[in-house]
Amino acid sequence: MNFTIEHVLIPVDQGYEEVSVQIVEGRIAAISPNLDILGTAIDGRNKLLLPGFVNAHTHSSEMWQRGMIPPYPLELWLAELYDFTPLDPEQIYLSAVGTAVETLLTGGTTVVDHLVLIPGRELETVAAVVRAYREVGIRAFVGPLIQDEVFESGIPCGGTEPKHPTYLRSAAATLEFLQETIAQFHRPTEGISIMVAPTGAQLCSDALFEGCVELSDRHTLCRHAHLLETKAQKLLAHEKYGCSAVEHLKQLGFLGSQTSLAHCVWLDEHDIDLLGTTRSTVVHNPLSNLRLGSGVAPILKYRQAGINVAFGCDGAASNDSQDVLEAIKIGTILHNVTDLDYTHWVTPRQAIELASLGGAIGLGMAGEIGSLEVGKQADLVLYDLTNLSMLPRTDPIGLLVLGRPTQVVDSVWVKGDRVIAAGKPTRINVDELRSQLFNRSQWSVNRKSPTVQQVEAHYRSVMQLPVLSIG
Amino acid sequence: MNFTIEHVLIPVDQGYEEVSVQIVEGRIAAISPNLDILGTAIDGRNKLLLPGFVNAHTHSSEMWQRGMIPPYPLELWLAELYDFTPLDPEQIYLSAVGTAVETLLTGGTTVVDHLVLIPGRELETVAAVVRAYREVGIRAFVGPLIQDEVFESGIPCGGTEPKHPTYLRSAAATLEFLQETIAQFHRPTEGISIMVAPTGAQLCSDALFEGCVELSDRHTLCRHAHLLETKAQKLLAHEKYGCSAVEHLKQLGFLGSQTSLAHCVWLDEHDIDLLGTTRSTVVHNPLSNLRLGSGVAPILKYRQAGINVAFGCDGAASNDSQDVLEAIKIGTILHNVTDLDYTHWVTPRQAIELASLGGAIGLGMAGEIGSLEVGKQADLVLYDLTNLSMLPRTDPIGLLVLGRPTQVVDSVWVKGDRVIAAGKPTRINVDELRSQLFNRSQWSVNRKSPTVQQVEAHYRSVMQLPVLSIG
Repeated sequence: MNFTIEHVLIPVDQGYEEVSVQIVEGRIAAISPNLDILGTAIDGRNKLLLPGFVNAHTHSSEMWQRGMIPPYPLELWLAELYDFTPLDPEQIYLSAVGTAVETLLTGGTTVVDHLVLIPGRELETVAAVVRAYREVGIRAFVGPLIQDEVFESGIPCGGTEPKHPTYLRSAAATLEFLQETIAQFHRPTEGISIMVAPTGAQLCSDALFEGCVELSDRHTLCRHAHLLETKAQKLLAHEKYGCSAVEHLKQLGFLGSQTSLAHCVWLDEHDIDLLGTTRSTVVHNPLSNLRLGSGVAPILKYRQAGINVAFGCDGAASNDSQDVLEAIKIGTILHNVTDLDYTHWVTPRQAIELASLGGAIGLGMAGEIGSLEVGKQADLVLYDLTNLSMLPRTDPIGLLVLGRPTQVVDSVWVKGDRVIAAGKPTRINVDELRSQLFNRSQWSVNRKSPTVQQVEAHYRSVMQLPVLSIG
Repeated sequence: MNFTIEHVLIPVDQGYEEVSVQIVEGRIAAISPNLDILGTAIDGRNKLLLPGFVNAHTHSSEMWQRGMIPPYPLELWLAELYDFTPLDPEQIYLSAVGTAVETLLTGGTTVVDHLVLIPGRELETVAAVVRAYREVGIRAFVGPLIQDEVFESGIPCGGTEPKHPTYLRSAAATLEFLQETIAQFHRPTEGISIMVAPTGAQLCSDALFEGCVELSDRHTLCRHAHLLETKAQKLLAHEKYGCSAVEHLKQLGFLGSQTSLAHCVWLDEHDIDLLGTTRSTVVHNPLSNLRLGSGVAPILKYRQAGINVAFGCDGAASNDSQDVLEAIKIGTILHNVTDLDYTHWVTPRQAIELASLGGAIGLGMAGEIGSLEVGKQADLVLYDLTNLSMLPRTDPIGLLVLGRPTQVVDSVWVKGDRVIAAGKPTRINVDELRSQLFNRSQWSVNRKSPTVQQVEAHYRSVMQLPVLSIG
């Protein structure tokens, strides 16, 4: 369907300009003041049009545990997460719908779902989220979260002998599943792309990484992984490889211009050089990094080194929301406390560019999405500037990034399809979604994770924390 | 009006309990399962009832500049703020209405307005916000922001001679204005209290502080000030006093159990001891501290030292919102990166207590508000747990603090008066507010602050930042 958004504000070099934007066959055909109306007319008055953001790292099924996990660092938090992970593909479908809706309603048009799999029902898990994303109409990159080593391998030994069996399942079996996933679901022109997405160096063998590199080269797939999220992972990498995890991933050929790496909190100067020379993308998840106490990723340094940066919400069990504008705000202002020289601080306009074009670059999509340019696909978001949270009128992008906009997304188009209109999803019934999420859950507190109880003492010892007194 | 909230969830020691809550003559009369309905029945099913939060530090008129000021540290940001400050009491009234509404809609029932005054129209400024808060129905503590030294005095000299005249106006004239303000507006039983609120050591003479202490003792008023928000203020205090600002305020008699101090970012161990022994309250404004690059206030240390902590949004030009839940979330998780031992991290329940009871303590109101207890005033907030942002159902307080609740406030009562119902203010017309804010403002960017241009080079030199190249 062709349409023209009239009298809409867009950012230009020296401020804002009121223009019309023509969309033809899913692409931006013209941007200019006083264009003819082509197709349906959309009233853009008192509204701001921006390219859609990329929610560049999340785990949709974590939505079932949001608000639930106590204040723990990643390694113990993961133990909780896996002890209570959803095991029903219908649940997986519903949390993917929820993730898509929250992403769209906060300015995102693309979601990167690093998807936790139901053991033994891996293909069904992927099918469930693909169905959800197609129904809602969001662009999705789905990276099945694969690992071939057991949970306990992800915690440093700290000089003790590892007691656990090393392998969860073979790299070969995992790669076979991935091959099948690609065959069944990888449809980039329809807005659904499969990525190779090993969870990270802490739980994956070299063989698994190498297999992923081979698959991504063969099928031109993006690569995605967690990287040095915590101090424990930095210790572990040195135990496991005798070098940094970045150096090791470089040697395995995993880094590159279509590789996006979530977190990157504990990199040193040499690691930063390697990300720069390989043109890898850092996905910054500020809220998750704070919630889990992982640290503050050195984003200002990455930008000074010319490294591409994107923003992610991370899964809703470590954030615990999927509000892309919130991730952008905190991911922008958090770094001001790391550098006294305010000329290095990220401006609201730069933040918007990281969230849109930065996200697109990390997915190899910079030619197709991520900016308001003629010829690009119409992944667009229209913001209502008359909402109370956007008033009084000042700088619209300043208000959007530094304020706390609530319900300001009026319309969203993905590939030119209007998937949000008047602040509501056009293709699914939100009340039905709410009712499903409500009925399949219950208020609860104080659940006990058996795995936390198993590993906590060892974790505290390795991290040189005092022994906990009992009771 | 008496009423009974039926079948509502409240937090109890081991989780949640479904109870009825009777409110009689503005106070909580009973909390128990299966109470009779007394007065109007309010359906509390699938809702959570909490004591109202205190937005313990803000500057309401900054709302006119939210989203506007570029990424600057406090000292340059203040120059921008004062160059473009609103000068019309009707504007002051509108931004106070806006601040009150945003505070109420995010769980706050009390606002502390450290009120920037229109020069020469000081009493009118106070009258405007008092009118706003009475109309909206929020409980308010209004502290006219007073200072008797000129703006440039707030930046350290760095060894150079101060070039500027020292006094803006006499302490005596300022105290006279304050005396008149108290006489006209201090009506604590009606929910409007005046505080003595010198801006802080950086811009106030000893005479002004001493006069404030005398007034607060005479009229039993709360005391409020900014304290060591930036590194520059720490340098300045040593230039000005030869000791820390905390030590100096202690000597002036300004600290105490009804003194709340905004920011407290740059305190040392001895300063922390002084706050502890004087039972002063720290108001944590995490978003403003990040936005202005001020630093991370050592909140975990304050808690370990037994110091009372409350949360504030700070003014909307440095945040740039008045979302109390956002301030609570970031003020909770931010500190996890400052201490590897997660047993010290603030839990969601502790955060809720700081935001409600912590705020009340700092205002000398702990006997009256801040918790769900029989006999306390009914400053209460009812949250809708069926909102999409609160689903799936897990731990309601976890979702509220760690998630990103949007439009979850169903009802708010202040002194037993229902000022929000079905998510909307009951006493003012929000559409009319929006239209006023819209019509009195315009989208703008790239304004130039003459004061920033005057002071920037000196500021950079004192803070040992590189000289800026021109152009």
